[in-house]
Amino acid sequence: MADEITAAVILIGNEILSGRTQDVNLSFLAGRLNELGIQVKEARIISDNEIEIVDAVNFLRTRYDYIFTTGGIGPTHDDITTDSVAKAFGVGLNYHPKVYPILKSYFEENGYDANEARMRMARIPDTATLIDNSVSLAPGFQIENVFVLAGVPKIAQAMFDGASKRLRRGAKILSRSIRCHSGEGTVAEALKALQMTFPDVDMGSYPWSENGVYGTTLVLRSKDSSLLNSAYDLVFEMVSSLGGTPSDETSS
Amino acid sequence: MADEITAAVILIGNEILSGRTQDVNLSFLAGRLNELGIQVKEARIISDNEIEIVDAVNFLRTRYDYIFTTGGIGPTHDDITTDSVAKAFGVGLNYHPKVYPILKSYFEENGYDANEARMRMARIPDTATLIDNSVSLAPGFQIENVFVLAGVPKIAQAMFDGASKRLRRGAKILSRSIRCHSGEGTVAEALKALQMTFPDVDMGSYPWSENGVYGTTLVLRSKDSSLLNSAYDLVFEMVSSLGGTPSDETSS
Repeated sequence: MADEITAAVILIGNEILSGRTQDVNLSFLAGRLNELGIQVKEARIISDNEIEIVDAVNFLRTRYDYIFTTGGIGPTHDDITTDSVAKAFGVGLNYHPKVYPILKSYFEENGYDANEARMRMARIPDTATLIDNSVSLAPGFQIENVFVLAGVPKIAQAMFDGASKRLRRGAKILSRSIRCHSGEGTVAEALKALQMTFPDVDMGSYPWSENGVYGTTLVLRSKDSSLLNSAYDLVFEMVSSLGGTPSDETSS
Repeated sequence: MADEITAAVILIGNEILSGRTQDVNLSFLAGRLNELGIQVKEARIISDNEIEIVDAVNFLRTRYDYIFTTGGIGPTHDDITTDSVAKAFGVGLNYHPKVYPILKSYFEENGYDANEARMRMARIPDTATLIDNSVSLAPGFQIENVFVLAGVPKIAQAMFDGASKRLRRGAKILSRSIRCHSGEGTVAEALKALQMTFPDVDMGSYPWSENGVYGTTLVLRSKDSSLLNSAYDLVFEMVSSLGGTPSDETSS
């Protein structure tokens, strides 16, 4: 489709793969990108390992319109994302002439030593443009279609919000949801038939259970609001006719 | 390392990539596998798309000792993991002679129609072995080194617990953590020096902030408890000498 704009997310950090940290950046980025009409097609979670980062960035950046990375741009020895992304693009990595003095003054004025570790955060790959960090100043950066964001969720979110105006917008995928008290197996066959009737409406089925009560949420997604509404009405009616007591659960 | 046992996790589902659902299966699996001495090296989140599933399974299963997938094994049309994994291995997919009668009786005895959609869950790839589902009966399966689990967290967890006794165990990675009130930039240089002194202890640094107070948690990981303890003592002392008021935050 001409107006489909795609993205991939690369979450970088041993702490996610060890189970120590529950990632929240993916759902944030996916939700915001979706609002801009950009579809996240794939996400990868990789360790703080140069080869893994270079390989993932170079594979994915040719495949999708935009790549977002989170994590690994801080001052410690395990923060190797900046170096790895510079290597992926084969460009130099130097103190940025604008960032260096700003960070140096900031650290000194706030009583911190502007030591080598802190000043590593002023290193930006050649040819990259900066992404502002309104939380803790040290910037992220964009190089071609790759956006390199911090791992701390509050900072990642601020960086994304600042950088998002640079993104092309696609046709937003609209979504409507129906919550019902039927099991998936009850609605599956009729839902499949409706899916075949509406190939341009993506119909997803998600079971839920709460306090021993269970049911299914049906999520309909499409770029075409009139198709979406027609499909919604028919799915709603189908669920009702099967005794599933449907209710609207569209969130936005 | 001879005793390193590795794994990758593949989370399958449009709902995670759209931002609708916050995944919790990865942190569960990563934590449990770590307890068994199996290191999760990579995770991928992909959509309900046959080509994507086949490619991810076939790429990763040659690269790691174990692969765990979650999602896409239910009764609805968007549940295509079973079909895709059968295709990845080039094996047939048929009603399983043990599973079929059990599921059929279960549905009939509980007042459900044993319709085609529900009975899809009795289809198991040839050569696969079953993984019990103590929650809702429909099983997962193992084929070679690939373990196919449900997406619903409670079911994924029950399946994993049942299947985990089949896994080879490696040397468990031990972990100790120090929480302190220094910023990462304060401890970074001394931490890097200690990391170089202890190449077999992986030292990670994770900033935190709570109610305007901020600091850093340093996580040390190693298979060798005496090395780990030596490194821990020196890192603790280093943080203390830099005024970071360290405290032990080792969780287990």
